[in-house]
Amino acid sequence: MNLVGLLAFAVAGALKGADAGLDPFGVATLGVLTALGGGITRDVLVGRVPAALRSTGDVAVVLVGVVVGLVVATLLAGSAGRVRDHPAFLVADAVGLAAFAASGAAVGLDAGLSAFGVVVTATLTGVGGGSLSDLLLTRTPAVLREDFYATPALLGGVAYVGAGAVGVVGAPATLGVAVGVFLLRVLAVRGEWELPTLS
Amino acid sequence: MNLVGLLAFAVAGALKGADAGLDPFGVATLGVLTALGGGITRDVLVGRVPAALRSTGDVAVVLVGVVVGLVVATLLAGSAGRVRDHPAFLVADAVGLAAFAASGAAVGLDAGLSAFGVVVTATLTGVGGGSLSDLLLTRTPAVLREDFYATPALLGGVAYVGAGAVGVVGAPATLGVAVGVFLLRVLAVRGEWELPTLS
Amino acid sequence: MNLVGLLAFAVAGALKGADAGLDPFGVATLGVLTALGGGITRDVLVGRVPAALRSTGDVAVVLVGVVVGLVVATLLAGSAGRVRDHPAFLVADAVGLAAFAASGAAVGLDAGLSAFGVVVTATLTGVGGGSLSDLLLTRTPAVLREDFYATPALLGGVAYVGAGAVGVVGAPATLGVAVGVFLLRVLAVRGEWELPTLS
Repeated sequence: MNLVGLLAFAVAGALKGADAGLDPFGVATLGVLTALGGGITRDVLVGRVPAALRSTGDVAVVLVGVVVGLVVATLLAGSAGRVRDHPAFLVADAVGLAAFAASGAAVGLDAGLSAFGVVVTATLTGVGGGSLSDLLLTRTPAVLREDFYATPALLGGVAYVGAGAVGVVGAPATLGVAVGVFLLRVLAVRGEWELPTLS
Repeated sequence: MNLVGLLAFAVAGALKGADAGLDPFGVATLGVLTALGGGITRDVLVGRVPAALRSTGDVAVVLVGVVVGLVVATLLAGSAGRVRDHPAFLVADAVGLAAFAASGAAVGLDAGLSAFGVVVTATLTGVGGGSLSDLLLTRTPAVLREDFYATPALLGGVAYVGAGAVGVVGAPATLGVAVGVFLLRVLAVRGEWELPTLS
Repeated sequence: MNLVGLLAFAVAGALKGADAGLDPFGVATLGVLTALGGGITRDVLVGRVPAALRSTGDVAVVLVGVVVGLVVATLLAGSAGRVRDHPAFLVADAVGLAAFAASGAAVGLDAGLSAFGVVVTATLTGVGGGSLSDLLLTRTPAVLREDFYATPALLGGVAYVGAGAVGVVGAPATLGVAVGVFLLRVLAVRGEWELPTLS
């Protein structure tokens, strides 16, 4: 699941960069940051040297995603946005959100964070990369404005804490949370859910 | 003082998010980040896992502030900005700035930073949260443009270093700096102080 | 080389802040962040308390650069941008880029990062400070859009990893990479190199 997510996030980030008119270095940076930025931020918060800068397997998948994004952007020139709205892509993206949120919750709990801290690391691992790439394009992160995207990750973090409180920990908890986040996100896409507006 | 500041900053951040048209997740994120973002950034810089992600007392106060902000924003719909200009609110905000700058200076000195480092942690703890929330709204942090807001925090850091050099350390130094920053900020609000413009 | 770079970056950042209409605190912040932001981010990523917050020599040079920038901005009022395009300035800036990229690569390798991690720390140390100051001004970092500026730093990181693989390490590797990055950047300025556009 994690590798599917890394690939989907890298392609999405690269296409977003290409749509915004970045040069190839910028497109590659957006792809890498979208895929790895959430996990890197989480690792820094819990005092670890980011796994993404130490290992190589994950990075290879991300670089493949960046190359795919560069090729697609060059071929589709300007209409690359449609790729990101394709149902297959949205499912792959939901897989990534679910895998990242679950792993973020697990890392937060392992690091001895409070319940609040675990919810933060779950959410941040899921949506941090996309939000950082939004910021590089000087856009308010989309997850703060609309859609039902950060909420499944946040609820995944809450569920992980709750599972731990009743003795469900480790792989069963991580897998359960990942499946729950994935289903919630897919339902949200199908139903075009939005959080209620204020006022 | 610290709790007053957390509450004021959380309410201010939530109202700022609501005014900018964020959804409830975005409003809550702005509130949390405004209150905790400065301290989290400081803790990361000095190599500590952020206290805000480990403890629970502070977070509870912040979440109360977020809920207050959400309720006020819903009731006042669009004119929430006036709350932030209310004298009572400005005093609470000055309390927060003072408490955060003083605690930031203390953390920096404890971590063995240079005088420059202590001034950075004092200033950053005071204005970092608000600046990060400005960035999420794609605004240049207000403290870089106008007002006399970061300067009291910076001078508080300088004063803390100076106090340490003449043997005044610990609680007396922290309290003295906090009172000084508070008075300076209140005078600045009353006198509508600005830094001189360049050119 | 490092001190030349710190001075050039601090002046460049301060002038950029002045051109954007910041107040003196903002101008100083931009200067400090442009000079020290890349190295601070790199140090945080590899789990070190940033050297810039512990030592004092580098900071003194940066503060001199900030004062120079403030004076130049006050005297030239509005046309300070021309200073940044002056050939002498571009050479000093290239020296900084080269020194920062080489030291970033060395720090990354010392910290046990992967080849990818070393390339990231080399590039980030070179272009991170300028990019962070762009973000504070709500601009997409220039290096993501145009010019041939981040690419020499990135290639410097690749060369450092390659040199290590064939047994060239330590000072010779750092010096060789710095010279290579400098020459590449100067050639890029003279030839007005750009990365190819997508599509």
